[in-house]
Amino acid sequence: MKRVRMKIAYDGTNYVGFEQQKNGTGIAAVLDEKLSELTGESIRIIGASRTDSGVHAMGNIIVFDTESRIPAEKFCHALNTRLPEDIRALSSEECPLSWHPRHAHGTKTYIYRILNERFEDPLRMRYCIFSYFRLDLSAMREAAACFTGEHDFRSFSNPGSQVLLKGGSPVRTLHELRVEAEREEGPYHGMITLTFRGNGFLYNMVRILAGTLLEVGTGRFSPADMPRMLAARERSAAGPTAPAKALTLVSVEYEDEKPAEKQKWS
Amino acid sequence: MKRVRMKIAYDGTNYVGFEQQKNGTGIAAVLDEKLSELTGESIRIIGASRTDSGVHAMGNIIVFDTESRIPAEKFCHALNTRLPEDIRALSSEECPLSWHPRHAHGTKTYIYRILNERFEDPLRMRYCIFSYFRLDLSAMREAAACFTGEHDFRSFSNPGSQVLLKGGSPVRTLHELRVEAEREEGPYHGMITLTFRGNGFLYNMVRILAGTLLEVGTGRFSPADMPRMLAARERSAAGPTAPAKALTLVSVEYEDEKPAEKQKWS
Repeated sequence: MKRVRMKIAYDGTNYVGFEQQKNGTGIAAVLDEKLSELTGESIRIIGASRTDSGVHAMGNIIVFDTESRIPAEKFCHALNTRLPEDIRALSSEECPLSWHPRHAHGTKTYIYRILNERFEDPLRMRYCIFSYFRLDLSAMREAAACFTGEHDFRSFSNPGSQVLLKGGSPVRTLHELRVEAEREEGPYHGMITLTFRGNGFLYNMVRILAGTLLEVGTGRFSPADMPRMLAARERSAAGPTAPAKALTLVSVEYEDEKPAEKQKWS
Repeated sequence: MKRVRMKIAYDGTNYVGFEQQKNGTGIAAVLDEKLSELTGESIRIIGASRTDSGVHAMGNIIVFDTESRIPAEKFCHALNTRLPEDIRALSSEECPLSWHPRHAHGTKTYIYRILNERFEDPLRMRYCIFSYFRLDLSAMREAAACFTGEHDFRSFSNPGSQVLLKGGSPVRTLHELRVEAEREEGPYHGMITLTFRGNGFLYNMVRILAGTLLEVGTGRFSPADMPRMLAARERSAAGPTAPAKALTLVSVEYEDEKPAEKQKWS
């Protein structure tokens, strides 16, 4: 028996999310099926991030246990020949049997993309949302700075969160929240990329932060409202949940990784 | 009566090409329908480039004649509210009634994208083809240089070309053929972008040049074979026709444009 750790990428458009749901196919179910076919075993993968319906990934991490004689490094290529074009394994390696992608201390990086132009760009609308409003980048950056560090993010979480319903902590640490734009000068800023890096995120937290920052950009909220939103500790205090299609999980980095590997993933 | 000139963008994935075909919907038919709805007239547009099935555009040019009282500049916005998300009008203006987008002297720029990595990237496969072969960028550049300038491109045209069947000239001028890569150093070069700029292209010419350059990259052809291919003046002498989905019409620039407009489009 060995445990294989694998980096995967996917376009989430045609899936109900990472986990299987009654109303459609989850990414995990496709991987389970194809790995089971490949090994002749009944494989059940575990993922680092159970991304929502429509969310994409450039580097989610999964593990699975197998008795297969296929070397861990070769799983990647063997699996890709069976996967649909919108899911790919990028690398694979053996890891300790005790290693678990959600128990290990991982740092996740997400990006959220907003296209700010006069009109939509049909060639970019699959992975971003659109806003033709004049957006104040300085205000968005000032607001973003209020969220970095350790905070109780209950206001920025879906109240249906299993973690919170079970009494889990709403405290998370956001190492970084960066606001970058194709063009600093307006009236339109082109593609605006919000980068979130943290040790864990509550359910819908990135999308609610993105929705709130967008409303700061349009002037509906001011950066000075952010501390009050955090202090309220209730969902209604924050801005709307921004759509899933503009969210991409970029990477999950673990402290046990060798520096070279770490660099490659960043 | 006035003639309106409009810049349009589209994701060609779900269309049979610019012109309507028996087997599906063309971009032009959608524009005809929506402009007719908008004006209450029977509008028939004319396009600068009749792109193939699956080919995308960031800036194709169309014209149409209308008695409508909608100002030419406003057509863009009014039309976008009716168009599907994969087609957008980017700008519109009045032009002389005698102006025709294929008779006027236009310079077209196309890009062709090849992703060169160990594995496909599900988030980029909609607009590129994939190659995991080691590609020799220097050889591709040396070959590309053979095609710039005025040449008889018959070897690089689909023999079913209406222009050639009707006795039209197979001579075209390629102002530029640039080979750029995300990473100059291998083994994988990331996204490779081929940029073609010229005063006109034969049917499938960009895709056959792209297919040929890719085979130069893998070593199947050498740059020294290119003059012989041109001289042969028959399709079988050149490389394969590369797939449509990786081809995008970037812009069509006309000499009558004001410098400011020209700059914006480049």
